[in-house]
Parts: sequence; C-alpha cells; structure tokens
Amino acid sequence: MAPRPTPADKFSFGLWTVGWPGRDPFGDATRPALDPVETAHRLAGLGAYGITLHDDDLVPFGADAATRDRHVARFRKALDETGLVVPMVTTNLFNHPVFKDGGFTSNDRGVRRYALRKVLRNVDLAAELGARTFVMWGGREGAEYDVAKDVRAALDRYREAVDLLCQYVVDRGYDLRFALEPKPNEPRGDILLPTIGHALAFISTLAHPDLVGLNPEVGHEQMAGLNFAHGIAQALWQGKLFHIDLNGQRGVKYDQDLVFGHGDLLNAFALVDLLEHGGPGGAPAYDGTRHFDYKPSRTEDMAGVWASAEANMRTYLLLRERAAAFRADPEVAEALAAAQVAELGTPTLAPGETYADLLADRSAFEEFDVDGAAAKGFGFVRLNQLAVEHLLGAR
Amino acid sequence: MAPRPTPADKFSFGLWTVGWPGRDPFGDATRPALDPVETAHRLAGLGAYGITLHDDDLVPFGADAATRDRHVARFRKALDETGLVVPMVTTNLFNHPVFKDGGFTSNDRGVRRYALRKVLRNVDLAAELGARTFVMWGGREGAEYDVAKDVRAALDRYREAVDLLCQYVVDRGYDLRFALEPKPNEPRGDILLPTIGHALAFISTLAHPDLVGLNPEVGHEQMAGLNFAHGIAQALWQGKLFHIDLNGQRGVKYDQDLVFGHGDLLNAFALVDLLEHGGPGGAPAYDGTRHFDYKPSRTEDMAGVWASAEANMRTYLLLRERAAAFRADPEVAEALAAAQVAELGTPTLAPGETYADLLADRSAFEEFDVDGAAAKGFGFVRLNQLAVEHLLGAR
Amino acid sequence: MAPRPTPADKFSFGLWTVGWPGRDPFGDATRPALDPVETAHRLAGLGAYGITLHDDDLVPFGADAATRDRHVARFRKALDETGLVVPMVTTNLFNHPVFKDGGFTSNDRGVRRYALRKVLRNVDLAAELGARTFVMWGGREGAEYDVAKDVRAALDRYREAVDLLCQYVVDRGYDLRFALEPKPNEPRGDILLPTIGHALAFISTLAHPDLVGLNPEVGHEQMAGLNFAHGIAQALWQGKLFHIDLNGQRGVKYDQDLVFGHGDLLNAFALVDLLEHGGPGGAPAYDGTRHFDYKPSRTEDMAGVWASAEANMRTYLLLRERAAAFRADPEVAEALAAAQVAELGTPTLAPGETYADLLADRSAFEEFDVDGAAAKGFGFVRLNQLAVEHLLGAR
Amino acid sequence: MAPRPTPADKFSFGLWTVGWPGRDPFGDATRPALDPVETAHRLAGLGAYGITLHDDDLVPFGADAATRDRHVARFRKALDETGLVVPMVTTNLFNHPVFKDGGFTSNDRGVRRYALRKVLRNVDLAAELGARTFVMWGGREGAEYDVAKDVRAALDRYREAVDLLCQYVVDRGYDLRFALEPKPNEPRGDILLPTIGHALAFISTLAHPDLVGLNPEVGHEQMAGLNFAHGIAQALWQGKLFHIDLNGQRGVKYDQDLVFGHGDLLNAFALVDLLEHGGPGGAPAYDGTRHFDYKPSRTEDMAGVWASAEANMRTYLLLRERAAAFRADPEVAEALAAAQVAELGTPTLAPGETYADLLADRSAFEEFDVDGAAAKGFGFVRLNQLAVEHLLGAR
Repeated sequence: MAPRPTPADKFSFGLWTVGWPGRDPFGDATRPALDPVETAHRLAGLGAYGITLHDDDLVPFGADAATRDRHVARFRKALDETGLVVPMVTTNLFNHPVFKDGGFTSNDRGVRRYALRKVLRNVDLAAELGARTFVMWGGREGAEYDVAKDVRAALDRYREAVDLLCQYVVDRGYDLRFALEPKPNEPRGDILLPTIGHALAFISTLAHPDLVGLNPEVGHEQMAGLNFAHGIAQALWQGKLFHIDLNGQRGVKYDQDLVFGHGDLLNAFALVDLLEHGGPGGAPAYDGTRHFDYKPSRTEDMAGVWASAEANMRTYLLLRERAAAFRADPEVAEALAAAQVAELGTPTLAPGETYADLLADRSAFEEFDVDGAAAKGFGFVRLNQLAVEHLLGAR
Repeated sequence: MAPRPTPADKFSFGLWTVGWPGRDPFGDATRPALDPVETAHRLAGLGAYGITLHDDDLVPFGADAATRDRHVARFRKALDETGLVVPMVTTNLFNHPVFKDGGFTSNDRGVRRYALRKVLRNVDLAAELGARTFVMWGGREGAEYDVAKDVRAALDRYREAVDLLCQYVVDRGYDLRFALEPKPNEPRGDILLPTIGHALAFISTLAHPDLVGLNPEVGHEQMAGLNFAHGIAQALWQGKLFHIDLNGQRGVKYDQDLVFGHGDLLNAFALVDLLEHGGPGGAPAYDGTRHFDYKPSRTEDMAGVWASAEANMRTYLLLRERAAAFRADPEVAEALAAAQVAELGTPTLAPGETYADLLADRSAFEEFDVDGAAAKGFGFVRLNQLAVEHLLGAR
Repeated sequence: MAPRPTPADKFSFGLWTVGWPGRDPFGDATRPALDPVETAHRLAGLGAYGITLHDDDLVPFGADAATRDRHVARFRKALDETGLVVPMVTTNLFNHPVFKDGGFTSNDRGVRRYALRKVLRNVDLAAELGARTFVMWGGREGAEYDVAKDVRAALDRYREAVDLLCQYVVDRGYDLRFALEPKPNEPRGDILLPTIGHALAFISTLAHPDLVGLNPEVGHEQMAGLNFAHGIAQALWQGKLFHIDLNGQRGVKYDQDLVFGHGDLLNAFALVDLLEHGGPGGAPAYDGTRHFDYKPSRTEDMAGVWASAEANMRTYLLLRERAAAFRADPEVAEALAAAQVAELGTPTLAPGETYADLLADRSAFEEFDVDGAAAKGFGFVRLNQLAVEHLLGAR
Repeated sequence: MAPRPTPADKFSFGLWTVGWPGRDPFGDATRPALDPVETAHRLAGLGAYGITLHDDDLVPFGADAATRDRHVARFRKALDETGLVVPMVTTNLFNHPVFKDGGFTSNDRGVRRYALRKVLRNVDLAAELGARTFVMWGGREGAEYDVAKDVRAALDRYREAVDLLCQYVVDRGYDLRFALEPKPNEPRGDILLPTIGHALAFISTLAHPDLVGLNPEVGHEQMAGLNFAHGIAQALWQGKLFHIDLNGQRGVKYDQDLVFGHGDLLNAFALVDLLEHGGPGGAPAYDGTRHFDYKPSRTEDMAGVWASAEANMRTYLLLRERAAAFRADPEVAEALAAAQVAELGTPTLAPGETYADLLADRSAFEEFDVDGAAAKGFGFVRLNQLAVEHLLGAR
C-alpha cells in the first residue's frame, strides 16, 4: 500500500493546480473556481506541507491595496489554521492581454515597465507570506515569428529585469531567491530560455548569479524530448536546483500537466532516486519542497480533483520506496559495480597527474588494449532491468 | 539566378560530408570512399574556401606516426595546390567500439585516458594544419538508461577533460579555441549537453571559459524542436558562436543532415539574416566560416554528391540576397517600426533610473493605460508575411 | 508581387478563424467577438469565395428554434449581399463541458445521444445553408488514460454515429457528404482517428463509405511529424479528399494554426503543387475550396486579423505561381526524367505479365545487374534544389 | 520475482535482434556476428517458443540455390533439436544499395522487378520453414524530397506488389498471411504507410484484403508520438493484428529498439492488458506470438545480449501478472464502473431504435439535463492511479 503523506514529506501544491477550472483552448471551464481558503484546508487535510500561488491567484489583477490586504489577511488566517506554509510565490505575466507579447521582453517598453512594477509588488507579497523562493515562468517571453523579435535585445531586457529584481531583494534584505522556469513553447511558438540549459546559461551572465536558480518542470523538458532526470542532474551540478515542479507528460506534445508519474514512469523513478539518494552517502540531493504543478483533468469533478492531488503524493512516496529498495539491493550493487557506474566518480587523471604525465604514460595509449576495452560489456541492460523490476515491485 | 560562390564567401565542408559513403542503420554503403586529395580539388573547383576533418578522416584510426605524417603531407600538398585552408579540425570519439560508452565520460577510466590521449594528438594535428577552431561533438557522451550513468560525475569528467585540453593549448601557445557541438540524442538515447543552452551553461563552469565556445548544428537543435535562429542568437549574445554547422532537418526525428535549406526554410532565412545582418549597423554578426555539415543522400552517385555540395552554397547565397532585400525594403522598415522590434533595444529603465524611481513613476503602473496597451496590435503577422514574400522572391 | 485573390480561386475561411478572440490556455481574450455579418462583408472584400462555420459560431449553444432562425436569416442576408457561399458546415462537440469526455464516444450514453441530436440539428442547418460538405472534428473523442477508454468500443460508437448520420442524409436527400478531420492530440491526450491513415481505415468499415471522406489539416498531421503532402496524396489516392484545412505549423508541438505558409514552406510548396498540378495532364487534383483554418495570432488587433486573412491567400497564390513555373521549367523536366519520377507510374509487370512470367524472366533476377542498378544515382538532391530555387523565385 | 518464460508463453525473437552486431550511423560493430544455430539453442534455453528471420539473416544476399539449401538445412536441424518453431519470416528490401530508393516502389522499374523476385523466393522459404506470417517492413519505400516521389504512383506499385504476392500464396496453397509493418521515418525521411492507420487504409484497397494484416511495432508508432495501445486496439477492431513487434522507445526520436518495457512503461502495461484480457470475458485478444524486435544496446557484450533477451520476456510476464491483478481488484471494478468504461459498449441507440425515434425522444435533447451531465465527474484520474499502483506492485 502507498504510505500516507505527512508535512515531513514537504509536498506543496499551487493554488492554480487544484484550482484549475478546466478551461482549455477548445473548451469552457468544467468546474467552479476554488476559494484559496478552502484549498488550504483541503490540502492540509491530505497531508501537504505547503501551498504556493501566483499574485493573481490570491489577489485579483489590478486590485487596489485595500482589496489586496483583505485577500492576504484572509488567506494568512487559513495558513495559520492549517499550519501550511507558503514556500514559494510566483508571478503571472501571461494571463492578461497586456502581456500578449511578454512582460520583461515585450517589444512595448511601457508594458515592460508595467511588468516590472507588477513583479516588484509581487515580491513584496512573497516576502510578506514568508516565501523563500520566487518563481518566474516567462511563458509569454517569446515569439511566433523569427523576424518579430530581436532575441539578443530580449535577453538584454530579461537580464535587466532580473538584475533589478535581485538588487531590490538585496536592498530590502528579503530572504528570497529567484527561480526561473524554462519551457520550450506554448503559449508562444518559441519561448526564450526554452530549457534548463538555456536558463542556466543565462544565469551565468547576471549581476547576482547566486540569487538566481531554476524551477524546472517535468513536462516542460519532456516537451522538447529531453531527459528530465538528466536536466535536474545538471541543475544540481551547477548548484541551481532551487525549486522543482513535478507532474506528468506523455511525450512531445502540448503541455499536459498530468499527475506526477502518469507520464514517463521510468524517468520519474530515476528522478526520485536522484532527489532522494543523489547526495553524499545516499542522502537526499535536494532539500526543497516537492512541488506539484499539475492540472486535474477536465473530466474530473471536485472529488476527482482531491483524489488527483492525493495521487501525486502517493506516487511520489511509492517511487521513494522503490528507489530505496533499489539502492539497498545487493544484486543492484553488484550490477552497478559491473557497469562501473561509480568509477566515473574517479578523476581521469591521477592525483597530481598532469597532461605531460598522461602523455608519457604509454599504458594509456601506445600500449592500451583498445580491442580488449572495446570488447568488454557494461551490462547496462541488466542494470536497467533491475531498475524496472524494482519499479514494478517485483524484487 | 543563384550567385556563384567564391572563397570570399568563406564556405567550408567536412571531409566526412561529401565523403559519406551512405551507410546507415539499415543499409550498406552506396558509394565508394573518397580520397581527401580529390575532395580538396573538387571543393576548390566549386568555390569553397575551407575544408575540415576528423582525425580519422585523414589518418586511419591507430596509425603510427610515420603513416600519419605521410597522410598529412599528401593532404597538405592538396591544400597548397588548391588554396583551401583548414579552418577547423574535429575529433572522432564515437566511431570505434572502444568509445561505445563515451570518450571523456565513459564509465571506464582507461577509455577516458585513451580518449584524452587521442584528442591531444589530434590537437597537435589541428595546430599543424593551421586550424583556429577545434570542434568536439560528444556524440557518445550519454546514456540509454538513467541508472547507468551518474550525470553529475560525467559532467565532472567532461569538465576535467576540457580544462586539461585548454591548459594544453595555452601552454603550447596554439592559436586554437574549442567549440562544443550539442546534440540531444542519437547515437545515444540521451546525450550530455543536449542543446546550445546546456553547453553554454557547462562552459560557464570551466577553468578557461574564454577558450571554449560552441559549434551549433541546425539539425541538432531542431531534433529537440528548438528554434535554431533563437539558439544562435543566445550563443552570439553570450559571445560563444565560434563555429557553425549548416544543414537541413525536417522536424523531430533522426538526424537527417540534409542540404542547408532543404529543411525549415523560414528558419534558415532568419538564420542567414541574423548571421549576415545581425551586427551593429546591419553588419555581419558572425565572421567565421559558413560550414556545411550535411550528408549527400544515399540515393546519390558521385555526380549527385558534388551537386549537393553546390546546392548548400547556392541556397546560402540566395538566402543572403533575400535577407538583404528584406532589410532594404522601406515597407519592411515601416512594419518593423510598427511592430516595435527595435524598441526592445531600448533599456526598460531610463538612463540612471533606479527601481526606486520606477516605483515612484505613477505613469508606469498606477496610471498606466493597461487596457489601451492590451488592445494595441503588434502587426507581427504582416511583418512575417513580408519576410515570406521576400523569401519567395516576390517583392 | 502577389496576385490578388478572386472568388474563382475558391478561398474560404471559418467564422471561428478570423473570429478567434485570442483566448489560449494561459491567457484571456485579446480581441472582441466578431459579428458573423461583418466577417462576411470583410472576407468578401478581400476576395474570398466562401465562409464556413460551426453551429455554435452562428447560433448560440442551446438556443431555441426562433433564436436559431433569426441568426440564420440575418447571416443568409449577408451571404446574399456579398455573394459568399457556405461550402462547408462543421460541428462543435468540444467546447461545452458536457462533451468533456467526447460526443459520439463519451463513456456516458446520455451525452452520446445528446451529441447525435445536436449534430442532426446541425446537419439540417448545413443543408439549409447549401453546404455540400459536413466536417466532423472529433477533438474530444479520445482519452488521457489508457485504462479509461475502451478504444474498440469507442470505434463501435463512432461508427454507429457516422452510419446513422449518413442514413439521415440519404433519407432526407441532402446533397451533403461528411469529412472527418483527424488530429493526434490536444485537447485530449490521445485523440481517436489520430491521422489521415487512421481515419481512412475507419471509413472503410462504414455502412456508407462513399459518403464519408476526409478534411485533413496541415498542422494536425505535422503535429505527429508526418508529411502533409504525403498524407494528402494517400487521401487523393483513396478518393477521399473531400475538403482541406490549410494553415501553418512549426513542428511537433501544440496546435499553432498559423497562416498558411508560415510553417513548413517546402511542404506547403509540394502541397500546392499536388493540389494544382497533380491531376491528369497537370490539371488540379482537387476541385474543392481552399479552406483556411488558422488563428490570427493573439498579438494582433483587428487590422492584423484582416491582414492575416489576406496573407493566407497571398501565400497560396504565390506558391501556385511558383509551382507552375517549376512544372514548366525544361531543366526540371530533365531532372525529373533523370530521377525516373514518372517511371514509377509504369506498372512493375508488363501488360498481361503474370508472376509466372516474372519468375521465368532471368533478366529480372538471375541476370539482373544488381551492382549496376545499385551504383546508379537518382539525382534527387539536384531535383529538390531546383524546387527550392523555384520556391525562392530564383529561376 | 519474475516468472520464468516457457514455450507456452509464445515468445519469439528475430535472428537480427540478438544478432545485431551494434553498428549504428556513427559507429562500427561492437560484437561479432552470431551463428543462427547458436542463437536457436540459446533462445530455446531461455524459454523462447519461436525464432524469426529475414531471408538475408539466414542466407547471404545473392547466394545460389545450393548455398541457400545448405544454410536452410543446417538451421532446420537446430530447430528440430530445440523444438523452436519459425512463426514468421520477413524480407530484407532495405540493406543492399540496390534498394536505396525502395523495393516495391523504387522509381527504377528494374529494381522493382528484382525486389518482387527476391520476395517471391523468400515466400517460398517462409512456407518451407512453416511460417504462417510473412512480415513486410517497407523501410526504404519512401522519400526525403517531396518532388522526387509520386506518392500515388508509389501506392499503385505497392498495391501491385502485394496483390501479386497474395495471388502467388493463394495459387501455391501456402498457409501464409502477410503483415505490413508501418514506420513513419528512418531510414527514409518519410516512409510510405507511416502508421498503423495508413497501412490499414491501404489494405482496404487490396485485391485480397483478407490475406493482409499488420505487424505493428511499439517504437514505430511512438516515433510519431502516437499511443501504441490505441493503435493496436484499432488494428484488433479491424481484425488485422496478425503479428506484433514488442520493444521499447523513449519518445519521438530515432528508432531505439530498446527492451520491451524499457520505454513507456504505462503504455506497455495497457498494451499487455489489452492483449491478454481484451477478448470476450477477459480472454486474450490476440493469440499470436509475442515477438520481440529489439536491439541489445551497443554497450553490451554477448552475456549482456542474452540477459537483454531474457529481460524482454521477464518484463512481459510481470506486466501480465500486474494486469491480471488489476482486472481482479474489486476497487478497480468499482472505479471502472464509476468511470462508465463498460457503458461505452452499449450502443447509443436502443435495440431497434432509429434516428426518427431518437429525434422524437425529448429526454435525449430538449429535456436532457446538460448542466447535470456536464458537472458529473468521470473519476479517470483515480482509475489511472489504480493502474499505476498495480503497475508498481503496490496493491
């Protein structure tokens, strides 16, 4: 049986996930809007740890200060009642028509200034709610037409915006870091910073690169056919996995936002194994919240919505169990050794060895048994089969 | 009519391109091997500027020093006779079975040492041939199975290798820079540094980041559904477009290596426009060779091979003409202005303006005409149609 | 310059195309609703021939008979004033929440019955408006979860529905044929009859296969990475190209519905060449309307909407010109002959030849010059380059 | 633990699968060729039931009759010794350069005639070996360039070839049926009959449609992003699942031919559930062999090859167990009922009901509770979660 989630598991959900009313490009909403207060109580009842939000999920677009404060106060009360925290706040620069060509990178400078102001206001909200991560998905920062967007200028403006926001956070003394969320396309034909890699590269050019990391989403990388666990590994390697969006996607198509595990299950297993056992000595490699950014299918009623929320957590916990058993299995240990997986952790050069030493080492080249090395099997298929059988609960 | 190419156009071809004998995963070679000397004479006759090669294209794998020198001398003579230069040399760490799990990141440390030695030897060859760019496509650096490769360790080893090679080049005083070539998959299930973005991010972690840039290939990015012109723009923005591989690809599928322009023609137009007119004042944004890394289809005989080589250059030159006409058209200028494309070059903040000033600017937020801005049309479709009509030679 | 469209070109547009207000999965509408009467006058002014519609585009969902008649009468008046015809009517079984699991194949039998009734009513409307084609896009007929839909039962129900509709049309004496519109996914995770092929196969099982054909859409096939011109060729080959939806798509991603030609331009060229010159003696292979099913990008205002409508027609006409020049070029004729393209029209067996004769023909096998045939080049790359150069208007 | 396979499970393997030496587009072979006799003994030892082959796997291309007979006799002896049967034989019209533009649909008529002769000879071999299914994968029947192939003429030639082969089988009295194997691309840019659907549609046009069915392959459909279980369901629905190729594929990319289950595991579960429990009363829906058409990764030595062969069977058997448990679980039965999955088996019209009756039924439309039906949830996510948990062995 699946274990029951508790706040110690650090599961969090966006207001907009369970709250998605089911409107899609070809159909109207199938469910009513959800009150954020009810959402908090429901999620707490299911064992969640945190709740996240876009500014506009909590405070209607364009609301004045008094309205804003009223919504925030009401929501804070629900947090206090439930014990839920708000680990992350994110920004909506995509829904309103004014952002139709982007926020930070709209061709229209007035829109860019407006976007910055909206986000600055939202950063204050994040700080007020105690969030430690501020996610920015630039879903409208992109183009359909190659001649209509100067990509280098757009990256200049993107950097200008993020630099300004970082300076603001530094000056205000907020304990808040930014996490960029890449996506290759949809709703724009091509979105800027389309993958984990592009966003990491962009961060390396910033004024405060230490304050900016990533919030990768399972489906977004898989929409480009990329291996999500590989992407997360590179993000971890660069110290940039600030947050994570878990969900499910079935291949290269529109953004499905299915329940975590309802997509590529093998890659989900590898991901959980990496997050939970990828640290030194098998410790977790990531200590942030396990955040679900998914949509309950449009076919579901509210009972189905809550069942789907639970499904995300159950699957995660099951995969965690399976990964633990995989790591503990002596046959797996033996297969990993045969596949020389850990040997890749050993530097190619010996301690203190230089390229001159390497050039002088005839055993490395002139006398290297090329044919012997070429003939040796790695046993990768057997190792993967062990993973599959653990995943299936068959070992 | 298509203009005739001349060396001033700086077109170059790999020996392995026109020399591809047509062996594919399901079929044997359809053409004989080509002698590099003949290739040089043929390409020179077509108007090419340069010729490039993998070590193993010129010198058989495992050849001893004398054999190597004989091959090199014979080839150099052809260069001298034809006036062709060798702007780039690249390395083959993928063909021999010893590299079946990669070169720099094979799980087998002996293979990694062997790979380093092979590349060091090849760097010497590159310097000897006067190449200024050394391309590394890590096509075997990857995995099919998530549990069989520790990606973070692999990136450590990748960095170790590139750092060592940079140090070698520095110490030898070679006038040579490295260019990494990303690819998402094939021949491995998932390749490390799968896109322009991932490779740029990796470079930011190196000991000599200034010595390492990119060699993006049209089809490789398009295999992940990414916009190639966008990727090139980011590479240029980060100062990392060291070399480029031009070819054609028809969507997300196996690596097709078609003739340049025989794939996504609209994106090819945008690419040429960017390369040729993306610099200050409409100057070229890239001054390296225009390198074709393509494969003459397996259905072609040798006459077809040379026709295909010519086709690459003709298409490039035609697109260059079309792009020039597009840029010179007053109606295009007007449409670009209407679409506010150049306005994106203006910083979002005024000179000297701080976020505090922005926060104090009521016209930016409190009094911003959101609905007015939202209602304004950008005219992107009209602009794109002008591009299409210029591309079609209809204006 | 692009020629101006006239009704003789038989261009048609859906009310929902220019009328799309720009609401997408991540953003609100950016444009107001359009009055169908205004649309008719505008399209007529641009040179269109026809206008098409979903029932709900003209008559609000759930309207009573009197309301319906009022809307229809008002629209018919616009048709009379403009001379536009309604060559096709289509059905909306996707927008209302009641169809969230499909119309004809919803797991809920009550919904299926309701869907049939809605479509029967719509068939009457089609007949009343003089449409000759009734398109059915089953966008909600599908599933996200493999265990939640019995596909074979769904196909039974789909067939039941189409058979019933055909019988209705026969009995009423309507001069109306059905055209199924395939799509692989979006809004459902997987849609039934996902490609031209699947729909053709389904039609072969119907009670009235002669009454049912296809309405393929450029982007829908390209979303599965399939060659649209190839698909149209098979549909023509099976006598089933009843209608066509022209638009643009940039690869395997969400459904973009760009302007025709703003996607894969080479394939668009091949498509127009096939439609216009694929018949006997170079006559058109298709005599139906050239129907644009696209969406003016969300970034456009109403001026941009009408410019985008015009762009579809201009591109089509330019491609028609380019294809005509391609077909008329003696160098192309020579290259086609060298590539033996027409030879494929010659049966493999001679007239009257049987397999016994073939088995007895030693020249076909025992004495066939396999190596000679293998060595011969087809010159396909040169031929394609001629197409590219014609497309670029460079010959 | 995974159950051990026995011949009763009807598992079969191609000689070319375990025998693949590991040559790929970028690398040489990593393993030696396998003797078919050894393969037979090894597979029998692992519990396989059958062995399959291309003509050229057993008899070298171009061999004379005496050579052929010697190879066949030697192989038959191995069959007799092991008890293995040859349920299927397939044809190689792709490897030799003579087929570079296809076999049945090459633009070159001489090649087409040669191809027919080669296949006729192979049909005799199939009959001699007792095969009941003759698979034809037309991997070279396609094109890279739209202008270089007349698709309708190609389909004419394809039909001519299949009709001739059917007539031959009928006349010879062979107990043999043909199974076409679709694939969207690779090695050709676009292959004719790219999906299950296109091939089914083609079959409906044949002279002997009853003699021709399909051999769908997991990865081939998934290369087009299509749902394999859905495709198999349509093939079963049309009575055309004559054979099946099981393997693994990780999304839209080159043809990976991984071990079954090492790709999309959820879809593999649905597939096995359909094959094993999709018949009346939960009986198997397919009674043919479970054929693995996969490639042991190039990283494996011969021990790894045999481990990979075993892995295919183990995964299948585990999935069969999981599917059986899923079907037997009362909670699943309840969730299926709530999701109205079986209700889709009930015709939309009542027995004897006509459209006239339906039109007269006010409860179906005028009085139908649209909002009530729209509000009802289907519980699909919960149902899918039950499938996931069964797949994980967690229930």
